[in-house]
Amino acid sequence: MSTPNGRLSINQATIKYAPLADALQVTSDAGITSIGLWRDSVQAASLPEAGRLLADSGLRFSSLCRGGFFTVPEGRARRAAMDDNRRAIEETAHLAASGAPGSVAILVMVAGGIPQGSRDIAGARSMVHDALAELAPDAEAAGVTLALEPLHPMYASDRAVISTLKQALDLAAPFSPATVGVVVDTFHVWWDPELFPQIERAGAERRIASYQVCDWKTPLAADVLLSRHYPGDGVIDFAGITRAVQAAGYAGDIEVELFNQDIWDTPPAEAVARTVEGFEASVSAHLGHLSGDLRR
Amino acid sequence: MSTPNGRLSINQATIKYAPLADALQVTSDAGITSIGLWRDSVQAASLPEAGRLLADSGLRFSSLCRGGFFTVPEGRARRAAMDDNRRAIEETAHLAASGAPGSVAILVMVAGGIPQGSRDIAGARSMVHDALAELAPDAEAAGVTLALEPLHPMYASDRAVISTLKQALDLAAPFSPATVGVVVDTFHVWWDPELFPQIERAGAERRIASYQVCDWKTPLAADVLLSRHYPGDGVIDFAGITRAVQAAGYAGDIEVELFNQDIWDTPPAEAVARTVEGFEASVSAHLGHLSGDLRR
Repeated sequence: MSTPNGRLSINQATIKYAPLADALQVTSDAGITSIGLWRDSVQAASLPEAGRLLADSGLRFSSLCRGGFFTVPEGRARRAAMDDNRRAIEETAHLAASGAPGSVAILVMVAGGIPQGSRDIAGARSMVHDALAELAPDAEAAGVTLALEPLHPMYASDRAVISTLKQALDLAAPFSPATVGVVVDTFHVWWDPELFPQIERAGAERRIASYQVCDWKTPLAADVLLSRHYPGDGVIDFAGITRAVQAAGYAGDIEVELFNQDIWDTPPAEAVARTVEGFEASVSAHLGHLSGDLRR
Repeated sequence: MSTPNGRLSINQATIKYAPLADALQVTSDAGITSIGLWRDSVQAASLPEAGRLLADSGLRFSSLCRGGFFTVPEGRARRAAMDDNRRAIEETAHLAASGAPGSVAILVMVAGGIPQGSRDIAGARSMVHDALAELAPDAEAAGVTLALEPLHPMYASDRAVISTLKQALDLAAPFSPATVGVVVDTFHVWWDPELFPQIERAGAERRIASYQVCDWKTPLAADVLLSRHYPGDGVIDFAGITRAVQAAGYAGDIEVELFNQDIWDTPPAEAVARTVEGFEASVSAHLGHLSGDLRR
């Protein structure tokens, strides 16, 4: 097996059923040098233990999934959501400090859907703004970047009222780029007619906190949450998008995050090998050398 | 049963399994005064017979679904697509002339997806531009408006590379508004953060050729094409969108077009009654009186 591109990071969701220790091992065994973790898995191990396992693995830490779900009217449930996000910020800082050099303290944020019984998507969006304003000081104090992820518009009602890169950048604008950034996930944004100018803008504003790659293919899975594919298996133009993200100055790890029942039913080592293969064929070739001053 | 709002039009897809004569009858029996037709049904009856049936029904004709599917590389298949669109233009003109006074010659256009084996969505979009340029003289000569419909981004790869109202308006811009307009279908555009400014723009540019209402609700149907709901059954803000379309000067018929297996399995008269109910509860209240000069 060839050595995978050094910027590839396995998002743990791709091998969802592997417990944390196994996920780290299978990633490392594949010659991959970075991993993105999920909170449920980290909490199942306990945060201190997860930090030790990560440190022992020698892998970089590329992100924690995920905070957010902010679209809750003020009251006890919103306070609980805020407290949970503060814990996620602390977890992110701890894991970033535990990972190998080059680890980053990135907390991926999914906005949340329209509150139950409401039809007010604009109101839900303003709850996201308010939540970011409330959490920004905590993130800044912890040295964590809140990475707001626009999700595909098919999730706009029940998962994320933030659907485009432009929206995410507009929401991030009042904050320092070190505190609030954005995620560019090809699956979510590939269709957007404004994608390329907004990637350029994201670069100019130094907001790209994470670049994630996975493919889009139809028919969609019956559960549209599980419809993600290995890079190269669908219709996404990874050449164009990767070059644009690269030209925008992003030089960090690139995660592959696949929600797909067939992939989850594949033995983890095989799913990781297929991921490496897809990444090499569709993404690696478009990652040229960057001059030192473009590196984060 | 109360008299339905005079602007309600049943799009024939809502009662997909009813042959044309039955569809006209059930619509008329419900006190509805307008209908949007589908080409397969018109062709099954033959165009002259469809025109006679429509004339006899006393209903207005609000649109023909559909032309488009332009994203075919130059060659025999593209020529066939163009010829088929020219026939659709003729059918639209004939049906508009056959319907009751107030009928409009609107041909709904769905762009088409990314060509098989391609990953070039920008290239596919330029094929839509070229097709409109080619067909515009035919449409103009026939007095038909090509109404470009942006579809939800979940259909961007396999059905419509035009996903937003802004894109559709940009494509329409080189043409006269009488020749190329846009469809505002709530199901497709409700999530768009740019929706309200683009509706306002569409009004200012006199491009709104059709307003269609149906609702969005999750979980989506396993076949995402069949995931449309009666107005009021989901999360769409019909008050806000309807008022915006109204304020933009649109005073034409408003179609309800529901692709939904459960609705198709409902007896047509019952589906139409449910449609009237949903329309009255969620849409009618927001249709104020318009001054004469705003009427199309």
